[in-house]
Parts: sequence; C-alpha cells; structure tokens
Amino acid sequence: MSKSYRLVAFGCRLGRMAYAAAQASIGDSEFDRDTTITERPGEPGVYDAELSAGWTIITAVNGGYLLAMVGRALAAALPHPDPFTVSAHYLTSSEPGPAVIRTEAVRVGRTLSTGQASLYQYDESGAEVERIRVVASYGDLAALPDDVRTTALPPAMPPYEACLGPEAGPAPIPGSNAIVDRLRLRLDPATAGWALGAPSGKGEMRAWFELADGRDADPLSLLLAVDALPPTCFNLGMMGWSPTVELTAHVRRRPAPGPLRISITTRNLAGGFLEEDAEVWDSEDRLVAQSRQLARAPRS
Amino acid sequence: MSKSYRLVAFGCRLGRMAYAAAQASIGDSEFDRDTTITERPGEPGVYDAELSAGWTIITAVNGGYLLAMVGRALAAALPHPDPFTVSAHYLTSSEPGPAVIRTEAVRVGRTLSTGQASLYQYDESGAEVERIRVVASYGDLAALPDDVRTTALPPAMPPYEACLGPEAGPAPIPGSNAIVDRLRLRLDPATAGWALGAPSGKGEMRAWFELADGRDADPLSLLLAVDALPPTCFNLGMMGWSPTVELTAHVRRRPAPGPLRISITTRNLAGGFLEEDAEVWDSEDRLVAQSRQLARAPRS
Repeated sequence: MSKSYRLVAFGCRLGRMAYAAAQASIGDSEFDRDTTITERPGEPGVYDAELSAGWTIITAVNGGYLLAMVGRALAAALPHPDPFTVSAHYLTSSEPGPAVIRTEAVRVGRTLSTGQASLYQYDESGAEVERIRVVASYGDLAALPDDVRTTALPPAMPPYEACLGPEAGPAPIPGSNAIVDRLRLRLDPATAGWALGAPSGKGEMRAWFELADGRDADPLSLLLAVDALPPTCFNLGMMGWSPTVELTAHVRRRPAPGPLRISITTRNLAGGFLEEDAEVWDSEDRLVAQSRQLARAPRS
Repeated sequence: MSKSYRLVAFGCRLGRMAYAAAQASIGDSEFDRDTTITERPGEPGVYDAELSAGWTIITAVNGGYLLAMVGRALAAALPHPDPFTVSAHYLTSSEPGPAVIRTEAVRVGRTLSTGQASLYQYDESGAEVERIRVVASYGDLAALPDDVRTTALPPAMPPYEACLGPEAGPAPIPGSNAIVDRLRLRLDPATAGWALGAPSGKGEMRAWFELADGRDADPLSLLLAVDALPPTCFNLGMMGWSPTVELTAHVRRRPAPGPLRISITTRNLAGGFLEEDAEVWDSEDRLVAQSRQLARAPRS
C-alpha cells in the first residue's frame, strides 16, 4: 500500500466536509454508536461489536478507533471506569465488520484495576483472528486530587481560525476515506507543508481536534485522539504507510468541553522505525493525555 | 513505606562500593547469572527463575531487573532475538525467591513476533501470584538498516569524571540495598541536589550508567537501565516511594560497548501520578532505547 491512510484522511478532508447540524453529546453520538459493545449472554467479559466502515481509511480501520472500542469493553469489564494507562500491540489489520472482544480482569485493586483484552475478527472459516492485544490499568479520574506540578506547556500553535481546515489542500485520494467525515481537524500551518508538497523537515504535527458531530471529548475518545493526526513522518518527507506496532496512552485528566489541541513529535527515526509522542491538551490548558507509539517508517 | 528504594540505592552507593576486579562479559556476568531462566521439562514456554536478593532495595526487587528477566524469557520463547517494544504492567511487589515465567507466542511474523509473558511468585499455600504482565514485540536489531533521521541529541551533561559517584553524598539508609553493588551510576550534579537536601525543582535526572562488573550493555540490560535511576520526583522535592504502574520500553539499536548516558524527564506530575520518559544513549552517541512509565507520585 503506497499511500498512507492518514494522508488520505487529511487529503479528503480538504475535498469535502460533513459537519453534523446538531450538537451530539457524550453517549449519543457517532463515536458512541460506532463503539457500541454488547456482552454475550452467558459469557461474561465477552463483547460482540461491529467495526464501522465509518472509521476506515482506504481498506483499514483506524487504530485509535479500535483502541477506544477495546477501551470501552475494559471499562465494562473492570470495576474502575477510566483508562489510566493502555498498552496496545497491533497484530493484524482490521476491517469493517463483526468483531469480538474478550476481556480478562487481571487484578482488581482499591484505586486501580488491571485488565487485558483482545479484539478478534473472523476468517473465511469463521475462526477468530486477533487484531489487537491490550493490557490496561483503569482508575477513577474523578477521584484524583487536583494537584498539578508540571513543567509542560500547551503546544505553541495558532488559534483555531488560523489553522488549516479542509478548504486548503490537495484533492482527495482514491479509497475509503470515511473517517474524514467523523473529525474536525485543523492543522497548524507550520506542520502542514507536506500537504502542499513542502514538508517542513521536522518531526512535528499539531492540530486542533474535535469530533465532527460536536460531541465533547471524554477519556474514551482521547484514545481515538492520540492516533488521529497525520503521521509526523510526512513532515520528514516520507509519505507512505506507517503502521503502528505498539501504542501506549496515558489518560491524565477528564477533558473539559471544547476543542482539543494535539501535538505529536518524533525525535528518533532510525533503522526503519520511529516513535511518535502525542500530547493532548484541553480547553482549560490541562494536559489530559499523553501517548507514545512505535511505528514502522514508510518504505518510500 | 516512606523511603524510596531508589533513594536508598543512591544513598548506599555513597557509603560503599564493590567494583568487581575482573571485567565481566555478556553471557558471563552478575546480570546474566541473576536473570537465568530454565525451561520446565515438558512445559514449553514455561521458565523457572530465581529472583536474586542482589537486585533488591529495602524489601522489593527492582522493576527493571524484573523486566530484563521477563525479556530474556520472551527472547527464548519467540523466534526473534531482540526486544523492540516491551509493555509491562506491574501488579504486585516482587520479593527474592523462586518465580515462574509463563510465555505465549501471540503472533509470529517475518520481521516481528509478538509475545506475552507473566512472572509469578508463590504465596504461602504455593499458589501463583502474578507480579508483572508483559506484552512485547521482538525483532532482529542486527537486521535493521543503518538509516538515522533524527533530531534527538544526547543529553547535555558533564563528562563521566565530573559526575557524582558514591563518594559525594549522604549516608546509607537502612534496609536491603544490594542493587547498589550491581551498578556504577554517576549523577549529573545539576540533577543531584536532592541527595544533599536541595532538590532542583525540575523533573530531570541524568546519569552515566554501567553494570558494576563492567559487562557491556545489550538489549536485555537496556530493559534494566531504563528503570535504574533515582526517580525524577526527588528533584521535585517528593522523596517517597514512587511505584511504577506501567512501563513501556523501545529498544532502537544494539548498544556500543562503553558507558551509557541516561536522561529521565517528567513533564506532568498531576493528580497523584507522573510520567517518566527515559532516553538511553550509547558511547557512539546513538539513541539506543526510549521508555516511558506511569508511576504514582510519592504520598509525602
């Protein structure tokens, strides 16, 4: 596959947009409907799900969407509600269609519980094929003290209106680009040169981020957000497919309503792999999530 | 527990040192002997091990030592030799004594294989108690291309001779401090103020790192190295116990012989948790490992 799904995502965003007219809410939104899980009768901790074609790029399902769905299953299976640290290893590419998530409560503690989950799809014979394996520790974000002793600052980027939306860029690329309609993503112009054929040479990507139907962020949608931007390697002049090997996300705080700012940086692209570090900031200037992934560098 | 095991480690290093007279080698060293695993006859993928009292602090076994031991079991169980990305969730505190590591080959691919492992110890009745659960993807570092496109620079720190070894600091703290004798750690004076009662206020820790018997680093010992420094929260004036919830390490390159430089930074201490990002650089100025952990902030 020579074109990155994330390039497609951005490119298509430039061609058409479909903002929902009505403001969706947490629990009643595209994201919530498309990450619905249903526990199997008589099989506690086993959840059927349907991977929506609405979150695909070309032929694959977005990895952050998968992580959010598995995160929802673990929230159902564990006594604590919120993902604190979620480690995912991506095994095979997911496709739209039925899936099953099998969870295990590994350890239940007072303030944290640890669980494991795998998402499977089915081959032609109906056998389960594992797509993603996750180990995660859950807690209660609302129970945390409000102390903040941090040196981190929000990403230096222009205001929302000065960032680049779908009107400013190249034409769509063939293939499924359904996820484009699910997001409102506005790129910092300093990190959008790749879209116009002039990559910055720096391993950075910054954007304002919202769900297209206006649903506010919550801890589960943060698991989507950390893997929703175009990859930093585009700004290093490498425009191909950059599959995630492993991604670990830390959710540090319940996000305030309003758009998020996401900053992604790569310090080390070497030996055919790169790391991508994401920070997600909310409208109250609080660092609500951090993630790091190891990805394969594009072959191009 | 009011004193951090890592504080103890440093403090004790100041009181006494036991550098081995002879240069050890990879495969014939304290680290190798103390991470030995033995496959159970008739139980493929199940390895007996002995957690050495030599890597303890106060009463607990160091988390990086545990990770290296589990990493060795996965290297034995998977067809690829080297850890590329290793995600560990720490469940309960480990103690010196017998342990068993149960591995599973999750997916075997051409360039990467993914495996899972748990390390258990035994309660009074002999039942297994899980200490740490790991999912990891392994590859072959020697097979990677030599391309480097990175903006990362080695940590700015004084040369080895100008960093602080055991001769310059407070007295030992009671409890087991066996791990002190296993390491040669020399702290950047700019990040060692906490040891003299004057923490810098910055979430940073930097040190030169070697194994005490002179064994050179390899990918497995890097799993130890990423969790071997005093925690950054000491420099934030929080001197208590800071247990790891989750740690993910990426090994990016086989390290060259010679001492390592390790830099740890914390950007966000909030809500009772902090992240610690580690970078490990080798003597050829190559970034050989990165890690991030989520830890609980000390209660003090």
